[in-house]
Amino acid sequence: MAISTGDTIPEATLVRMGAEGPEQVSITERLKGRKVIVFGLPGAFTSTCSASHVPSFIRTKAQFDEKGVDEIICVSVNDPFVMQAWEKDTGAGDAGLTMLADPAGEFTKAMGRGFDAPPVGFYGRSQRYAMYVVDGKVEIMQDGDAPGQCDMSSGEAMLEKI
Amino acid sequence: MAISTGDTIPEATLVRMGAEGPEQVSITERLKGRKVIVFGLPGAFTSTCSASHVPSFIRTKAQFDEKGVDEIICVSVNDPFVMQAWEKDTGAGDAGLTMLADPAGEFTKAMGRGFDAPPVGFYGRSQRYAMYVVDGKVEIMQDGDAPGQCDMSSGEAMLEKI
Repeated sequence: MAISTGDTIPEATLVRMGAEGPEQVSITERLKGRKVIVFGLPGAFTSTCSASHVPSFIRTKAQFDEKGVDEIICVSVNDPFVMQAWEKDTGAGDAGLTMLADPAGEFTKAMGRGFDAPPVGFYGRSQRYAMYVVDGKVEIMQDGDAPGQCDMSSGEAMLEKI
Repeated sequence: MAISTGDTIPEATLVRMGAEGPEQVSITERLKGRKVIVFGLPGAFTSTCSASHVPSFIRTKAQFDEKGVDEIICVSVNDPFVMQAWEKDTGAGDAGLTMLADPAGEFTKAMGRGFDAPPVGFYGRSQRYAMYVVDGKVEIMQDGDAPGQCDMSSGEAMLEKI
């Protein structure tokens, strides 16, 4: 079942590329007692994710800061090496966004948001969404964008809702 | 069972990023009647693959041409979007190497060369190897490099054997 507004985020281990290499991150520990935006997307280095979704949160980062949001996390079913390269390529790291890899799709499956698209080489990838999570509970869920679109799940759309 | 010298390469579909988007590639059709180097590695944007393995075939590409090798193919269990970005980043495309994505690990499994390394976010990835394939049959197999090393499977090591 897909996690939605009012639900508690399920536990899953994500991977962040640290200075010393890949580090395991418990998502429930990371969200505890904090206000966090988590947005999920199909893949690093794909057009809509690189040209629309990530930039929309880079553009709005300062406004989320003003609203008291502690962290903005981007999750994708890629490995931490790819996420690190993409973080540099998009400028997401410099902008203060956190890129978390979900290499086995553990978080994405637990969220009920996996999908396959074999013709483009996607297996167990994440649907596009953005959510506002307060102390581990989903306060706002923005999803339902058509393929190749990033409207509902964009930084600007989320900003209007908070 | 791992495919080795004397074996015929098993059929598998790989994915190449073309001008119009991802294209399916039958490996057996691609190898038929041709002399091809195929090298496999753990992942795009990882250190040994980016700094050693791919550059070793860029350096030796012209010498393989002189020996009548028709194509040099790099295979990794990544999606075609990541492989395209990595092809640009390493200069492999400009050098004339072909990057083929094995997003579901179909080829890597059929080759008997998959491995997992959960701490770094690798699942069903490819061990490091290089092989010289003539008309779909393995003539030379170069593998057995220690993790983080690229000696046996390098372009120079393969060049010496042909």
